[in-house]
Amino acid sequence: MKSYNVAIVGASGAVGQELIRVLSLRNFPVKKLTLLASKRSAGKTIDSEFGSLTIEEFSEDSFTGKDFVFFATSGEHSKKYAPLAAEAGAVVIDNSSAFRLDDNVPLVVPEVNPEAAKNHNGIIANPNCSTIQMVVALNPIHRFSKIKRVVVSTYQAVSGAGQDAVRELNEQLRAVLAGESAAVENFTKQIAFNVIPHIDVFQENGYTKEEMKMVNETWKIMGDANIRIAANCVRVPVIRAHSEAINIETEEFVGVEKARELLASSEGINVVDQREDGGYPTPVEVSETMETNVGRIREDISCENGLAFWVVADQLWKGAALNAVQIAELLINNE
Amino acid sequence: MKSYNVAIVGASGAVGQELIRVLSLRNFPVKKLTLLASKRSAGKTIDSEFGSLTIEEFSEDSFTGKDFVFFATSGEHSKKYAPLAAEAGAVVIDNSSAFRLDDNVPLVVPEVNPEAAKNHNGIIANPNCSTIQMVVALNPIHRFSKIKRVVVSTYQAVSGAGQDAVRELNEQLRAVLAGESAAVENFTKQIAFNVIPHIDVFQENGYTKEEMKMVNETWKIMGDANIRIAANCVRVPVIRAHSEAINIETEEFVGVEKARELLASSEGINVVDQREDGGYPTPVEVSETMETNVGRIREDISCENGLAFWVVADQLWKGAALNAVQIAELLINNE
Repeated sequence: MKSYNVAIVGASGAVGQELIRVLSLRNFPVKKLTLLASKRSAGKTIDSEFGSLTIEEFSEDSFTGKDFVFFATSGEHSKKYAPLAAEAGAVVIDNSSAFRLDDNVPLVVPEVNPEAAKNHNGIIANPNCSTIQMVVALNPIHRFSKIKRVVVSTYQAVSGAGQDAVRELNEQLRAVLAGESAAVENFTKQIAFNVIPHIDVFQENGYTKEEMKMVNETWKIMGDANIRIAANCVRVPVIRAHSEAINIETEEFVGVEKARELLASSEGINVVDQREDGGYPTPVEVSETMETNVGRIREDISCENGLAFWVVADQLWKGAALNAVQIAELLINNE
Repeated sequence: MKSYNVAIVGASGAVGQELIRVLSLRNFPVKKLTLLASKRSAGKTIDSEFGSLTIEEFSEDSFTGKDFVFFATSGEHSKKYAPLAAEAGAVVIDNSSAFRLDDNVPLVVPEVNPEAAKNHNGIIANPNCSTIQMVVALNPIHRFSKIKRVVVSTYQAVSGAGQDAVRELNEQLRAVLAGESAAVENFTKQIAFNVIPHIDVFQENGYTKEEMKMVNETWKIMGDANIRIAANCVRVPVIRAHSEAINIETEEFVGVEKARELLASSEGINVVDQREDGGYPTPVEVSETMETNVGRIREDISCENGLAFWVVADQLWKGAALNAVQIAELLINNE
C-alpha cells in the first residue's frame, strides 16, 4: 500500500495533538510524520503512535517533499503559508477559517459533499466545528425533503477555544469550589458555573462570527443557499464535545419515524433516541468518539413539516481533526 | 400599614429558603412568619431577617389564622393540602405544577397578567421558572405585534432540581478534578462538565414535561393559544440562573431598535445589549438579582419579521420565590 509524507503545522495545539491521535486511530498510511510549530514549541518531544517525534520549528522550507500538510494554526498563518505548501506540491487541509468561503477552495465534510474534494487547487478547507456536526445531521433529511429553515442553539465545549481555555475552566472551578474568586483570561466572563452567549467576534448584524459561519459554511457545504439559518452560539463549561438543539422546517412532511430511519442509515451518524431517562447523547460519553450522535428526535410542534433534534459530536475529532483526516482519506481512495 | 400572617410550606427546600429572603428583601409586611416542613426538617432553627425561626411540623391545622400560605413542595402535596389552606381562609400561592393549568386557578406573572390574580378562589399558581422569564421578555413585544411562533432552547441551572442537585454538581466536579469518577444520583447522567437535554418526564409526543410547560403555561399567562411554541430544555452545570436562546416571529416587522425600546421600558426587564465583549447577561452576574435580563437582540435572519435574543434570570427568584411574593404584593396593593 502506498504511504505518505504528512506534516502537521501547529502540532502542539489542541487540534494538532488530536491530528496525531486520529491519524493513528484511522490507520492513515503515514510514511513519515513531521510535526511543525512555532519556535516556542520547537524541540519538544512527543511520544506518539508514530514513535517519539521532536517538534521542528516551522519555516517556509518545511513543505518540501510533503504529500499532506494539515494546518492547525490561526487564519492569518494559514493565509500566509498554506499557498506556499500547495506550491511545493503538498495537499493542504486547513483547519482555519482563512479559505473556507474562497470560491477556489473546496469546503468538505466527507459524509455530505465528498465529490467537492476532487476539484482542489492544493488547498482544501476543513469547516467550523459547529457547522460540521450540524450538516452531517441535516444532510440526510435535506436529501429526502429540502430544508427551508434551521434554528440552532449550541452548547459548545471550552476545548474549542484551545488548551489554555480548558486549563482556565479547571482553575476557575478549583478556585470557586475553594471559595476563592476566579481569574478570567480566555473568555470575556467567568466560564466556571456559567454560560457565555458569545463565540468569536461580533459582526455588523449583531451575530457573532461563529454564528455566521454556521450560515455561510452550511450553504457552501450543502450547495444550497436557499436554506435560511439562524444560530445562537453559546459556550458552556464542558471540556469536550459540542451539543446543538436544532429545529428545522422541510418542504414536505418528514415525520419522526422517517427522520430516524434516514439518520440511522447514514454514514457517520449514531442515533441515540429512546424517550426515557438517559436515552439521548451527552458530551461526556461522546467525547473521543468518531460519530455524530443524534437524539431527542420529535416533531417541531411550532410549525408545519417541522422537526426538532439534539446533535452531539466531539468537536476536536469530527469537528476538526477527524474530518480533516477523512478528507485526506477521500483523496487517497480516489487515487 | 396592615401586616399579614404568612406561612411557607416546604421552608427547608431551595425555594422555601429563597422565599424567606425575598419576603425580607421586598419588605413584605409580615406580621408573623411561620415555617412549615415535614417531620424530617421540623425543629431546625433558621436565622432569618424575621428573627430566629423554628421550623414547625406541617399538619392540616397549620393554616389557621394565616393570610398567605406559600407552598414550595411537590405537586402531590400541594394538590392535597392547598385546598385545605384556602378553605381555612388563606390565599395560597403555589409553586408546584398542580394547579397551573386548572381553569379555576389563575396562573400569574405580575408583569404580564396582573389582573388575573384578582379572580382567585383561594389558590393562585406560580408558573414554571423557565416560562416566567420567557413570558416577561415576550410580552412587551407581543403587545406591540402579535408573536406567531417561538423557538426556545434553555440552559437551566442545577438549583432548579433542588439543593441536593447543587451538592451533586459540586461533588462531581471535585471528584472529576481529582481524577476520580463521579457518582450520579439526581440526574440521569453526570452533570459535571456535561449538558443533559432532559428536564422532567418524557411525554407521549417526545417532548419532556418541562418543554410542554413552556407551551401550555405561556398560552395561559399570555392569554393567547395561537402562539406556536417549541422548546428544547437542557440542564447545564450552572448553579443558579436560567438562560434561554429565543427566536420569535411576529405578525408585523418589529426590528431591533423597537424591540430594545419596548423591552427597556418594561417593568422587571434589564436590557444588557452591547455588541461587544461582555455586553450580554450571563448567569453568574444575574444570580441573586431580581430582574429578567435580555441581551443579544438581533433580527432572526432565517425568517421574515423575526427576532432573536438571550434571556437570563435567577430562576429561584424571578422564576419562583420572587414571582410568588410579587403575586402576594399584587393582592395587598389591590385591597
